[in-house]
Amino acid sequence: MTHTTKVLLKDDEMPRQWYNLAADIPGGLQPPLGPDGNPIGPEALAPVFPMNLIEQEVSTERWIDIPDEVLQIYSRWRSTPLHRAHALEQKLGTPARIYYKNESVSPAGSHKPNTAVAQAWYNKQFGINRLVTETGAGQWGSALAHATALLGMECKVFMVRISFDQKPFRALMMQAWGATCVPSPSEETAAGRRILAETPETSGSLGIAISEAVESAVSDTSGRTRYSLGSVLNHVMLHQTIIGLEAKKQLALFGETEPDVVIGCVGGGSNFAGLSFPFVHDKINGRDIEILAVEPVSCPTMTRTPFGYDHGDTAGMTPLLAMHSLGHDFIPPPIHAGGLRYHGVAPLISQAILDGLVTPRAMQQTECYEAAVTFARTEGIIVAPETSHAVAAAIQEAHKAREENSEKCIIFNLSGHGLMDLAGYDKYFNGELTNYPLPQEEIDRSIETISGFPKPNPN
Amino acid sequence: MTHTTKVLLKDDEMPRQWYNLAADIPGGLQPPLGPDGNPIGPEALAPVFPMNLIEQEVSTERWIDIPDEVLQIYSRWRSTPLHRAHALEQKLGTPARIYYKNESVSPAGSHKPNTAVAQAWYNKQFGINRLVTETGAGQWGSALAHATALLGMECKVFMVRISFDQKPFRALMMQAWGATCVPSPSEETAAGRRILAETPETSGSLGIAISEAVESAVSDTSGRTRYSLGSVLNHVMLHQTIIGLEAKKQLALFGETEPDVVIGCVGGGSNFAGLSFPFVHDKINGRDIEILAVEPVSCPTMTRTPFGYDHGDTAGMTPLLAMHSLGHDFIPPPIHAGGLRYHGVAPLISQAILDGLVTPRAMQQTECYEAAVTFARTEGIIVAPETSHAVAAAIQEAHKAREENSEKCIIFNLSGHGLMDLAGYDKYFNGELTNYPLPQEEIDRSIETISGFPKPNPN
Repeated sequence: MTHTTKVLLKDDEMPRQWYNLAADIPGGLQPPLGPDGNPIGPEALAPVFPMNLIEQEVSTERWIDIPDEVLQIYSRWRSTPLHRAHALEQKLGTPARIYYKNESVSPAGSHKPNTAVAQAWYNKQFGINRLVTETGAGQWGSALAHATALLGMECKVFMVRISFDQKPFRALMMQAWGATCVPSPSEETAAGRRILAETPETSGSLGIAISEAVESAVSDTSGRTRYSLGSVLNHVMLHQTIIGLEAKKQLALFGETEPDVVIGCVGGGSNFAGLSFPFVHDKINGRDIEILAVEPVSCPTMTRTPFGYDHGDTAGMTPLLAMHSLGHDFIPPPIHAGGLRYHGVAPLISQAILDGLVTPRAMQQTECYEAAVTFARTEGIIVAPETSHAVAAAIQEAHKAREENSEKCIIFNLSGHGLMDLAGYDKYFNGELTNYPLPQEEIDRSIETISGFPKPNPN
Repeated sequence: MTHTTKVLLKDDEMPRQWYNLAADIPGGLQPPLGPDGNPIGPEALAPVFPMNLIEQEVSTERWIDIPDEVLQIYSRWRSTPLHRAHALEQKLGTPARIYYKNESVSPAGSHKPNTAVAQAWYNKQFGINRLVTETGAGQWGSALAHATALLGMECKVFMVRISFDQKPFRALMMQAWGATCVPSPSEETAAGRRILAETPETSGSLGIAISEAVESAVSDTSGRTRYSLGSVLNHVMLHQTIIGLEAKKQLALFGETEPDVVIGCVGGGSNFAGLSFPFVHDKINGRDIEILAVEPVSCPTMTRTPFGYDHGDTAGMTPLLAMHSLGHDFIPPPIHAGGLRYHGVAPLISQAILDGLVTPRAMQQTECYEAAVTFARTEGIIVAPETSHAVAAAIQEAHKAREENSEKCIIFNLSGHGLMDLAGYDKYFNGELTNYPLPQEEIDRSIETISGFPKPNPN
């Protein structure tokens, strides 16, 4: 063969620790606040999460051991391949070297199992045998169903009703893995019943589903049920760093020292954090790396909002998190990248943007699908609508490298395949895709709910 | 980690040649016959296939070099993992060691790209720039669309209308890879127009789609279009042997010398042939291996039919092939394993059954889904309905090993994932799945169209 197209790691080359960016954020992180405006302590989260995960959430240890059994489960599909995109480079006529980390090879089809398996394992260690969560488009719910199946635990997923109705296959994946998936709002929680009484025909929302999942978890009096979240929180970002830690070793096997550009798409931020944080670490230590966080123009959390305190959910049940946010009652336009339709972004990423370590960029839906089709016809992989944002930014960077005649090394995260989510491609081919630029007035109105620049209460 | 869950091969460990079972069939193969009952020569196939593939079709060379560029494309996703099914073994309480070869990791989600890439490459070498094919459930059409995209060729797929309507995502995959997919029967061919004139509301059939694809290919007067078939023929089986050749090396890396049982599901036979033929070779050379070919009880081509001469398609356009067949106008019951609903089985497999090298077995649809759910909840992979037949047989063998207290080594082919095909799981969970045992009269009636035991015309 004339050139290497992918590199994998052997089991004994696998990273044995996750990387915790919280240890290296120059000024530290702003703490989450309770309803009274005071920083909350770990015990406030104990009804919701097991204490071992809460400890990870507040940890400032730089390296945290990956438990053996988690490594064992990872090894069923990890390392994921790092591919060199020779065919795409040729098509673009770029002197750049483009690499992509292929998280789509997991049984759930995305990066989500990296934290689902870890969270399930820590819960089980803590004596929990049942997890409750919510899901929008279904990627996270199916990943948690997969993880709990492998660990012999129960799982319940509240799925936003409109997705439950439109994407029956996602619920079937969860069922195949033994989870119970119910449309939200449901009759099973007080929150759900209240909303159904007021608006029986509601299509649901992620905010409502979070409320139901949290209520369902904390109201189980056995003490053996907890809630699980698939993005945003520090411990979720932590578990995902297996992606970037593998990628660093794989780049070295390709003969690369350090990438010039690292790219990921951002909804809550977990796949972006997973690939990029180990490189953010290098940047903090003096390396010159551009780290691009890509979001939709129609949900411009990072590019057009202030850094402030806001709730993680629509109903305001979660603590206030220090983050970029469009306001917790922001309703994003109906783009196909359902996983990027989130009003906030992880506190760790928000802080990294504030510190100049990460550069946000917004992309139009149409240019993302155009990039995804170019990618499918060269590299052969049909990516998820979310992932198409990373592909589009990588192609932009490759064009720039051609203009500058620069042999840059670009790496992006292929966070998931699009086989369960092809409706957007259909609209693209039929010329029916819409971009949804947001008028400034709409953003101004929405961010009025945010508490302003974080000033933790000194009490 | 306590145990190894998967083994991969490095690029320099990859097999460089395909294995051709035709070289080792003890009494040789019966030749295909033309409409006059005489064996046909290679030139008769020249309007349909390029001569380099026709040469492979009739070759009796034991080893055939894999072209460098084909190896290069294979390397984008190959080697595929060989997994040890520790969790399944534990669940079954079996002393057997169970392995599965995971072909679902290809970008098209199945083993089909192994021959699609090879066929596209040989056609391109021969000066062909456009391939035409048919597809039933869509696995083959999407694999050929993927292969032609990677090689910069055009592709047209006639898809059985009922599948085209029920599975719009499969057609979208083909479109994402740049292929044109049209429902069959269509207005584009004489055969299609004739059938539409007679039965405008027809849901189509694989037989009609083959007729349209062959007609469309041979009527292109540019001379740069050919037809492509995804199973049955000798050269298709040949290309798929990459599966078993990799698996042999991977079993050795697991410390196994030779498996005791090799299992694959059979429609036309290509994934079964791919895994098993390198082990059939060992069996011919004296090794004691049970090689199980698994089919649905509702389409019992191998278990309940004579070995005879029959057409590969419903309309009788193809040569007569020496094979087990239910008769070329047999209409199989509507089981979910669409890829196993074929009236015949590859001549090479048919001959291997006749020679006692391969043992056929038939399984019920419900027991296959039950096995697939057990597999999903232990090994974490949701398999295709076709693949569930191999899983079910592997579980049967594992139970048998437990009863015999025998530490058997069992390997099966996980030919594809089921993410695009979850409707059958839904019916299984709802208790709505039907088995379709076939009355003997129906089989007797259907096989009347078969020409009887092959007796090649001496002229």
